[in-house]
Amino acid sequence: MRATVYHAPFDVRIEEVPDATLRGPTDALVRITHACICGSDLWPYRGQEPFPPVSRTTECLLSFSTGAPVLHVIACYATCVDISFSLSRQLDRISQQSHEWMGIVEDVGSQVSTIKRGDRVIAPFAFSDGTCEFCHKGLHTNCLHGGFWGQTNDGGQAEAICAPLADGTLVVVPKSVEGDEAKLKAILPLTDVMGTGHYAAVVAGVHPGATVAIIGDGAVGLCGVLAARRLGVERIILLGHQEQRLELGRRFGATDLITSRGEQAERDVMELTKGGAESVMECVGSKEAMETALAIARPGGSIGYVGVPHGSEQIDLTRPFFDHLTLRGGSAPVRAFLPELLSDVLAGRLDPSPVLDLTVDLDGVPSGYAAMDQRQAMKVMVRP
Amino acid sequence: MRATVYHAPFDVRIEEVPDATLRGPTDALVRITHACICGSDLWPYRGQEPFPPVSRTTECLLSFSTGAPVLHVIACYATCVDISFSLSRQLDRISQQSHEWMGIVEDVGSQVSTIKRGDRVIAPFAFSDGTCEFCHKGLHTNCLHGGFWGQTNDGGQAEAICAPLADGTLVVVPKSVEGDEAKLKAILPLTDVMGTGHYAAVVAGVHPGATVAIIGDGAVGLCGVLAARRLGVERIILLGHQEQRLELGRRFGATDLITSRGEQAERDVMELTKGGAESVMECVGSKEAMETALAIARPGGSIGYVGVPHGSEQIDLTRPFFDHLTLRGGSAPVRAFLPELLSDVLAGRLDPSPVLDLTVDLDGVPSGYAAMDQRQAMKVMVRP
Repeated sequence: MRATVYHAPFDVRIEEVPDATLRGPTDALVRITHACICGSDLWPYRGQEPFPPVSRTTECLLSFSTGAPVLHVIACYATCVDISFSLSRQLDRISQQSHEWMGIVEDVGSQVSTIKRGDRVIAPFAFSDGTCEFCHKGLHTNCLHGGFWGQTNDGGQAEAICAPLADGTLVVVPKSVEGDEAKLKAILPLTDVMGTGHYAAVVAGVHPGATVAIIGDGAVGLCGVLAARRLGVERIILLGHQEQRLELGRRFGATDLITSRGEQAERDVMELTKGGAESVMECVGSKEAMETALAIARPGGSIGYVGVPHGSEQIDLTRPFFDHLTLRGGSAPVRAFLPELLSDVLAGRLDPSPVLDLTVDLDGVPSGYAAMDQRQAMKVMVRP
Repeated sequence: MRATVYHAPFDVRIEEVPDATLRGPTDALVRITHACICGSDLWPYRGQEPFPPVSRTTECLLSFSTGAPVLHVIACYATCVDISFSLSRQLDRISQQSHEWMGIVEDVGSQVSTIKRGDRVIAPFAFSDGTCEFCHKGLHTNCLHGGFWGQTNDGGQAEAICAPLADGTLVVVPKSVEGDEAKLKAILPLTDVMGTGHYAAVVAGVHPGATVAIIGDGAVGLCGVLAARRLGVERIILLGHQEQRLELGRRFGATDLITSRGEQAERDVMELTKGGAESVMECVGSKEAMETALAIARPGGSIGYVGVPHGSEQIDLTRPFFDHLTLRGGSAPVRAFLPELLSDVLAGRLDPSPVLDLTVDLDGVPSGYAAMDQRQAMKVMVRP
C-alpha cells in the first residue's frame, strides 16, 4: 500500500510500504477515507522533535515493518523519547505520526466485538483500551495500554491502517452520513483539534456567562472558540495575528479580537476584562503563550493549556500562587468527548470544518506539509 | 507599647514603639493575648527576603510610625516588593510581619458594626474587606482593599495592634473559652497554619476514600494531615525527615511515613500507591518539593501547593501536561475557612495545638526566632 514516509526534515514522501494487516485479536484493519495533517506534525517535519512524546504511564509499543518482533518499552517519558529518536535514526525512515483519520473497516480481530466490517469509524489521536483506571476516569491519553498513532509504521496519511484496541478506541459513524462530504468534513476534526479545543475549554473551567480569553488562532484555538460558545460562554476574546483566521474566529463566536503582541496584548486584555479573564485557554504550546496566559488570568481563574510542551516551558509559580490560578492541561483525551461532539455535528449544532482550508490526495501530502509549514494553509485534509 | 522590631538579619528586638491607635473608621484596636512566630517569618529573619510578597491585586498600604502620611501604592507584585524593600532599607528598621495573632478589642472605629469592645477576636494572616468580588469568591487574600499584617508598623508580636477592615477581617471567639488555655492554644493556629493546611487539602482535591501524599513535616504539613483526615481521606502519606514531627503526624492521622529523600522518596511513594497519589499537598515552598510533588502525583491527580514561592520555583510543564495534573495553590484565604474550623475546634473535633511546641513571652520573641531558625522548635507561641 502507499503511505507517508518521513525521511528527513522537510522530506516526507509517498511510498510503497508493506500492506497494513491485522496483527492481534483486538485490532481493526481500516481503509482510510479521510485524514489530516496536524500542526503538531510540523514539529518532526521541521526537525524540531523526533517523535510525539508519550506519557510515562503509556506502554509504548514500537513495531516495525521489517517483521522484527514487537519491541516492548515501558519507560518514562524522557527515556521513551530518547529510544524513539535513536530507533528512528537506526531505521533511516519512519512514518509520520499522522494521527487524525477515519475510514471504513475491512477486517477485525477475533476479540473485537463492537466494530464490524463495513463500519465507518473515526479514531481519536490516541488509542486506548477503554477499560483501565484512567480510561474509566476519562483520561484515555493516560491509558495503561494505549499509545499514539504513528509510533508504529501505521499512520493515518496512508491507504490503510491497523488500529489496535479497536473496541476501546474507535467510534462508529452512522451510515446516514455516507456521501455527505460536507458532513464528513465536519466530523473529521473530532479526531483531534475539535476535541482538543473542547478539552481546553473544559480544563479552563468555562461556564455559561463566563469571560474566556483564547490564546492562538490556529485550528485548536479556533475550535476552542466553537467549544467555548457551545458551553455557553458569553464573552470570547481571541488573541492572534492572522487576519483570515481571526475573521473565522469571529464567525465561530469570538466577541473580541486582540491582534497586539506581548505586553501590549496583556494590557489590552486586562483593560477589556477589567482585571483579567476568568478562564484562559492556551492553545499554542510555547513559553511566551503560557506567560501571556498567566498575565491575563483573573485572580482565582483557570488556565487550560493544550499546546504540547517542548521542554522550554519553564514557568515561575509566583504569579499563579499569589493569584490563586488553577493550571490544568494535557494531551486531550479526545476519545472521552468524541460521542457527544459527534452527536452535535450530526445534529448540525457544531461544524468545525472551516478549519480545514486545503484538501489534497495522498500524492499531495508532501505539498500539504509545505503549505502548512509556510502558513499558506491552516490545516490540510487528506483524501487518500 | 512594646513590639518586635526587625533591625537586620538575625537581629530582632523588643522595643518601645508608638502606641497602636485607631487610624480609620473601619479599624479595631486590639490588645494582643496570643501570637505566633511563623516559618515564613524566618525568610526575612534570615535575610532571604525583605517583605512578604503581595498579590498584584492588593492595594498595598504602607504606613509608618513616623507620622508621615500613608503611602498608597497600587502596584504589581514585583514593583511592590521592590518598593517595600527599598523603603525598609530607608527606614532602617521595620517590624516583622508577625501575622498570626488574637486578642481583646479595646476600641473600634465609627464604621465598625460587628466587632465591639471586649470581644475576643482572631485574625487571619491577611486583612480583607469581605465585600469585594474576590472576598465573595472566598479569595480573601486577593481582596481588592486588603493586605498582609506587618506591612504596616503593626505586627502581631506586640502588645497591641491596629486592625484595618475589622468587620471583614476579624472573627469573634465565644466568651466561653476565656480562661481555657488549652482551647485558646488550639484556636491560635487557625490564624494561619491550620487554615493553610486546610486550603492545601481543598486545592489538592482531597475527598473521602482518596489517597493523599503530604510533602513537609512542618506546622503546615502537619496541619495538612489534620485537614485531610477531617475531610475523610483514608490513606495519608507524610513525607519528612524529623522523627518527632513525623510521630506527631502519625498521631494526627498519617497512615504512612516516608523519610527517604529525593528520587528514593519518589520511588517509595510510587510503590506504596502503585502509581502515584491522587492528591498531593506541597507544604514546603521549594523547587525540590514541587518536583517531588510532580513526580508522585497520579495521572489525572491534583497538586495543592501552599509553600510561598521565592522566585526559584521554575517548573517544567511537560510532566503536568502528559500526566494531566491540576496545579492549584496560593496564599491561603484563611478568612474563608475560619468560621468552620473554629466551630470544629470549639466542639473538640479539631486540635492543632501540638504544633505549638514552645511558648515565650514578648521578651522571649528573639530567642523564639533563634529556636525556630535552629530547628529547636517547630512553631512558637507568644504570650505578650
